[in-house]
Amino acid sequence: MRKNISVQQIDYTPVARLGTEIVERKGVGHPDSIADGLAESVSRALCKMYIEEYGTILHHNTDETQIVGGQSNPAFGGGTILEPVYILLVGRATTDVLDRDGKLHRLPYNSVALEAAKCYLEVNFPNLDIRSDVTIDTRIGKGSVDLMGVYDSGKRLANDTSFGVGFAPFSPTETVVLEVEKYINDGMKREVPGSGQDVKVMGSRLGNKLQLTVACAMVDKYFSSPDEYRDAIAKFGDLIGKKAYNVLDGSFQDHDMDVEVFVNTADILNSPDPDDDIFYLTVTGLSMENGDDGSVGRGNRANGLITPYRPMSMEASAGKNPVTHVGKLYNILSIEIANRIAKAAGGEMDEVRVRLLSQIDKPISDPLAANVQFISQDPDAVRKWSSEAESITAQCLDDIDKLTMKIINGERNVF
Amino acid sequence: MRKNISVQQIDYTPVARLGTEIVERKGVGHPDSIADGLAESVSRALCKMYIEEYGTILHHNTDETQIVGGQSNPAFGGGTILEPVYILLVGRATTDVLDRDGKLHRLPYNSVALEAAKCYLEVNFPNLDIRSDVTIDTRIGKGSVDLMGVYDSGKRLANDTSFGVGFAPFSPTETVVLEVEKYINDGMKREVPGSGQDVKVMGSRLGNKLQLTVACAMVDKYFSSPDEYRDAIAKFGDLIGKKAYNVLDGSFQDHDMDVEVFVNTADILNSPDPDDDIFYLTVTGLSMENGDDGSVGRGNRANGLITPYRPMSMEASAGKNPVTHVGKLYNILSIEIANRIAKAAGGEMDEVRVRLLSQIDKPISDPLAANVQFISQDPDAVRKWSSEAESITAQCLDDIDKLTMKIINGERNVF
Amino acid sequence: MRKNISVQQIDYTPVARLGTEIVERKGVGHPDSIADGLAESVSRALCKMYIEEYGTILHHNTDETQIVGGQSNPAFGGGTILEPVYILLVGRATTDVLDRDGKLHRLPYNSVALEAAKCYLEVNFPNLDIRSDVTIDTRIGKGSVDLMGVYDSGKRLANDTSFGVGFAPFSPTETVVLEVEKYINDGMKREVPGSGQDVKVMGSRLGNKLQLTVACAMVDKYFSSPDEYRDAIAKFGDLIGKKAYNVLDGSFQDHDMDVEVFVNTADILNSPDPDDDIFYLTVTGLSMENGDDGSVGRGNRANGLITPYRPMSMEASAGKNPVTHVGKLYNILSIEIANRIAKAAGGEMDEVRVRLLSQIDKPISDPLAANVQFISQDPDAVRKWSSEAESITAQCLDDIDKLTMKIINGERNVF
Amino acid sequence: MRKNISVQQIDYTPVARLGTEIVERKGVGHPDSIADGLAESVSRALCKMYIEEYGTILHHNTDETQIVGGQSNPAFGGGTILEPVYILLVGRATTDVLDRDGKLHRLPYNSVALEAAKCYLEVNFPNLDIRSDVTIDTRIGKGSVDLMGVYDSGKRLANDTSFGVGFAPFSPTETVVLEVEKYINDGMKREVPGSGQDVKVMGSRLGNKLQLTVACAMVDKYFSSPDEYRDAIAKFGDLIGKKAYNVLDGSFQDHDMDVEVFVNTADILNSPDPDDDIFYLTVTGLSMENGDDGSVGRGNRANGLITPYRPMSMEASAGKNPVTHVGKLYNILSIEIANRIAKAAGGEMDEVRVRLLSQIDKPISDPLAANVQFISQDPDAVRKWSSEAESITAQCLDDIDKLTMKIINGERNVF
Repeated sequence: MRKNISVQQIDYTPVARLGTEIVERKGVGHPDSIADGLAESVSRALCKMYIEEYGTILHHNTDETQIVGGQSNPAFGGGTILEPVYILLVGRATTDVLDRDGKLHRLPYNSVALEAAKCYLEVNFPNLDIRSDVTIDTRIGKGSVDLMGVYDSGKRLANDTSFGVGFAPFSPTETVVLEVEKYINDGMKREVPGSGQDVKVMGSRLGNKLQLTVACAMVDKYFSSPDEYRDAIAKFGDLIGKKAYNVLDGSFQDHDMDVEVFVNTADILNSPDPDDDIFYLTVTGLSMENGDDGSVGRGNRANGLITPYRPMSMEASAGKNPVTHVGKLYNILSIEIANRIAKAAGGEMDEVRVRLLSQIDKPISDPLAANVQFISQDPDAVRKWSSEAESITAQCLDDIDKLTMKIINGERNVF
Repeated sequence: MRKNISVQQIDYTPVARLGTEIVERKGVGHPDSIADGLAESVSRALCKMYIEEYGTILHHNTDETQIVGGQSNPAFGGGTILEPVYILLVGRATTDVLDRDGKLHRLPYNSVALEAAKCYLEVNFPNLDIRSDVTIDTRIGKGSVDLMGVYDSGKRLANDTSFGVGFAPFSPTETVVLEVEKYINDGMKREVPGSGQDVKVMGSRLGNKLQLTVACAMVDKYFSSPDEYRDAIAKFGDLIGKKAYNVLDGSFQDHDMDVEVFVNTADILNSPDPDDDIFYLTVTGLSMENGDDGSVGRGNRANGLITPYRPMSMEASAGKNPVTHVGKLYNILSIEIANRIAKAAGGEMDEVRVRLLSQIDKPISDPLAANVQFISQDPDAVRKWSSEAESITAQCLDDIDKLTMKIINGERNVF
Repeated sequence: MRKNISVQQIDYTPVARLGTEIVERKGVGHPDSIADGLAESVSRALCKMYIEEYGTILHHNTDETQIVGGQSNPAFGGGTILEPVYILLVGRATTDVLDRDGKLHRLPYNSVALEAAKCYLEVNFPNLDIRSDVTIDTRIGKGSVDLMGVYDSGKRLANDTSFGVGFAPFSPTETVVLEVEKYINDGMKREVPGSGQDVKVMGSRLGNKLQLTVACAMVDKYFSSPDEYRDAIAKFGDLIGKKAYNVLDGSFQDHDMDVEVFVNTADILNSPDPDDDIFYLTVTGLSMENGDDGSVGRGNRANGLITPYRPMSMEASAGKNPVTHVGKLYNILSIEIANRIAKAAGGEMDEVRVRLLSQIDKPISDPLAANVQFISQDPDAVRKWSSEAESITAQCLDDIDKLTMKIINGERNVF
Repeated sequence: MRKNISVQQIDYTPVARLGTEIVERKGVGHPDSIADGLAESVSRALCKMYIEEYGTILHHNTDETQIVGGQSNPAFGGGTILEPVYILLVGRATTDVLDRDGKLHRLPYNSVALEAAKCYLEVNFPNLDIRSDVTIDTRIGKGSVDLMGVYDSGKRLANDTSFGVGFAPFSPTETVVLEVEKYINDGMKREVPGSGQDVKVMGSRLGNKLQLTVACAMVDKYFSSPDEYRDAIAKFGDLIGKKAYNVLDGSFQDHDMDVEVFVNTADILNSPDPDDDIFYLTVTGLSMENGDDGSVGRGNRANGLITPYRPMSMEASAGKNPVTHVGKLYNILSIEIANRIAKAAGGEMDEVRVRLLSQIDKPISDPLAANVQFISQDPDAVRKWSSEAESITAQCLDDIDKLTMKIINGERNVF
């Protein structure tokens, strides 16, 4: 079927050449990211349960996890959690299924959700004790009747009039912010084992000066004294600085960026009275232990970043069902299409932007409009690449079923 | 100090010789007992925390756990939990302590409570998966200021005008009911491994005919078919019958009781249409998995039984602080006093009843009234035993501090 | 049908002539009573909904309300509620009904429960602002399948093997305790308008000396100063003393009781330093505003009293369904039978005790055993009165349907 | 003080002249907007409490309300709420204040929050019965110590490294979407009284064709039959169409837009079998009554719209404290600055974009960077207007204190 695909060139200044650029990434342990991760892990677990039981994914949306910060008393050498974090899993799911032979089956959706959420926390947050540091409650109910009617039809019809947005390639600043956060939460752990999972990386570029401001919850039991903490923060900054240049040198050979790194800037490390010193210490490596709340859809977009100089969608991807939910599928797909077109065009595109607009109750593979925009120094870009862009877009839309399975198997990032 | 102890004889018919007698015991897995057990385990954990931190037990009462039944779908061979049980830990505790040097310490009371509750469930209910079958939430707040004022004084003053009641020895029916439940939840597990922890034993005696009605949640995964279930129930009944006679023959040599046993009487096992059969099957061995709620203080009294033909106190013992709470200490102590007096008197007492009445804000070792009653066929009993009864009572009251530690160490039953 | 009714005489000392007697009543505003009242009001509202919709009462039990105390800051002239009380309505109800024409109806059970609970609080506690002082949450689920099967049959079969206990008439102490609490919460409000609804009356009699210890939460906004409070407490004590004698003189003409009254004994009213004074002040007249928790079934028995010198049932009556629940119906009915027999016998009975023992799955009007006991100075009492006692018992059992409607209409006390 | 203000011209195509444009507004009754509204009303109430008690606004953030959809059974003529909506107020607040004379004051933050939330619901949603249709719970705790340290200093220092984004003027599509939603929830209620408050308006423009897709929860009791509903929807569409043209004709005289209106497109209104018809009926006019969840910060940006073709901030404004929270203040201020510059320049600006970037712990009136961008057909725009733009920006930053009071008094929109 012919899709409503349009391709056009726009003559904007690409983000990388703007005078200022702001890019943020909330790491896996930021309260908003934890909410996203829990919501998505619950959705994946439900999908697997539905597939195992019925060979198909039944209606659900679990995109509203609320994290209520606890209270803690961190201390050098190891402190205590005073009040556990409270996590409320919210959403709706298909809970009862009427079999072909007229029998009503009830599904263990709440137990599956609870188990998935606890697994997620255990796997990702080694310093969190899920027995005593966190309470997980569920309020997952039945979906509204109207939406379930749409869903029950068995065809993959868009659930809403909504849209998705994606772009490629990443600017140097975006690339650095993303890679630095991944490094902190992976390779750097060997060098600074006391760094926690709650990391926020803010990159603000003015001209070719890139400030990386990193806030990272440090885990108290790894530091027996303020001195050890100070040393770790110094090492932390050095490692990040090196990493940032590595990333830039590797992916953007002729860059001229100056990187400046700030770690835990709210710390006060060398007061006249040592008692006035302030450290970003936590028991669990997570700020949610002490008052920081979190909820789904307020952190990273589906490409892993917050980019106020780029078009963004407000839709949360995490926790939405990966079958009919435009707000999830079209965001992820837009990114994928943009990436594939940018790659196909080699370095000729400064920026590819993709927007997909759904029509409610129409097949999800057939959007109301699929709009591809090029920013390129080549005035001829549309003529050269529009046909390939169109074909990539059409193919991605046709393969949207496969995307669903990739999401369920965790092969697509959603935050 | 001279205590207000009175001893008298009353010429009641002892319970064992009444025409009818009703005795009930809710086993460790009954929802009300679970609430009791959780409340008590939380109180014990708080006591240990307070002692470790401050060398003394600070004010708390955690005697209001609420269990909200879940939903399950048991099935031969193994079913599923549909909705987890919800457990709310309620109470108040000393959460902040002002140190001698004027610094405010905050205590991890909620984490300690949560950890204690989860441990308790794991240790006692092997078929319950605390990850997915249960949600534990806490709403433990600060105590009211007035009560804490009383408490802070550091002296052990009674917290309330209240009373405790105890009696000894147990009648044959009481002894059988208690021992049979213990057997079901201990030794019998080797013979009938599929029997769960939620057991209720009701003994109703008319003359010398003792009916034992047992309801026991069976664990579905141990039974692959209705036939296996039926066989287990038959064996269950036989074993209990034998146990009951063993108990009677061992402790009451010249008894003439006839014991009749009924197990899971609400079952329907051999309907014309097998689909109409009803089995008391559960996934976890606990009826709370499917709609049965529970709360503290509604089950067994501190002696382990519910005995409507005996004087009883309405006070819940479980979860109350074991330092100043009359409702806990005086009930446990009354039982202890009655037991010691009955033992001292050899078989001469048909019944010893003890009642302790506190006076608020007076030392807990000095009750307003300590009243000991004898039922004995020997009209001279008071003359012979009152002095010893009085001395036992006084000594027990003087040793009330030691009782506190025994409670904390789990050496005293509270439900 | 011939009932299993037995009548016998026992030669116990009646409670009124024992050397000691303890009687307690928790007033309507005590946290445990509030839990009872809420549970019962929810059950009544559900009954009315079921009757209106289907002409019959469907299965439910809402007998597990949990009250979690709030935090307050009372002050002369009027203080503030710092944290609202949290109330959790717990239980199970018939939520979905399959019509005769095969359509599934869903019932607004949760909204009805919520509305009933709020109404109850508003009507009974004029100083409580239900908008800001209290949070009411519900976790009422579907009943367990087995129990609902029993229930669905439409016949009134006992839901359990259980029992009820009742006695009559009240002793002087019992009468005084009951009437004094009623007076405090009714007529006395005109004289001491600042007295709250949370009242506990403890009567402890030693010989003919009756100590009435009253704890009553006073409402702060009615008192502009400590002096006004002190005056009110003094007046309070006087009024109660007078009331106690009025009750005794009216109902027990030849009594020789000495009544001593203590009001709010934990108060400290005239310290050297006025700051050390302690007052039982509240914002709402309810101690649950500041840390006192409450739950169903831990307060008064169905006759309105706690009487440790009398046989009692542990079963909570409040909130249980009034159709098949033995724990509710047999307790209320036992009281009624005892009252009617005692009345029929004029003053000849010192005490009538009634116990009803159910058999699960048998008609509720046909207990396994109905046992009536007389305590009377007339050795011939059984011969004279057993036939009438039997006939009263049989009639009450036959009329158990009417009792259900009386309960729903609020014509029977349950706590 | 000299601010870091930069002004530049960019040669982007203004949104209004792009080939496609998508603009969305969630009305006051959309679940995400309700969460925003509640969060903001709670913050305002706390601000007023703090000002009244201490003359200054103390630390708080209440920006995490979670709405868990209920269950309902709407019906022509009036249906029922089956399960109440559950609303959890989340955040942290200053709860205890140490007076100058060393006394600890506790503040009624939770009661104030609860009261504010209930008021908000009552004022805005006339068809919602807050007694029975909704449960409001609170989990507002103390703020984390580090942040409160920053705050306590009494100076207005930025709480975070963050940014705000604003633009002006609105495009025709944006203007229409905003005004149409306001009309539906205000003037149109007189014409279509059965239209509810849960409205979502999606404007998607392709060239000069503007599709307005409106979803509006209709209130069942206003419609006695499907026919009445159909008539109302038809009238609804007509009125909106007229309104849209009125707005365009009034504000954009020479526009050439074609407006097409769709109302409740998921409805199925004239099936062969009337039972197959689907209506967007609700009891309360709010989709949260039946399964739709909501949370803060996922709906409209601070300018009232969701505009994926414009730069946006992910920061939620609602519920954040209006004193130090950059995520709130800088977003609102950016909009204000953009509006004032656009107005000052008459019609010469196609677009003014403002971005403010904070520096943590520096005065909030002194951002790290204030960046103003012009899109104008006049190549000389920067020369002509930069000085005025700079002066407006500086003045707005200097007046940020006044903005705080305007927010508290409800004079600034936050969603």
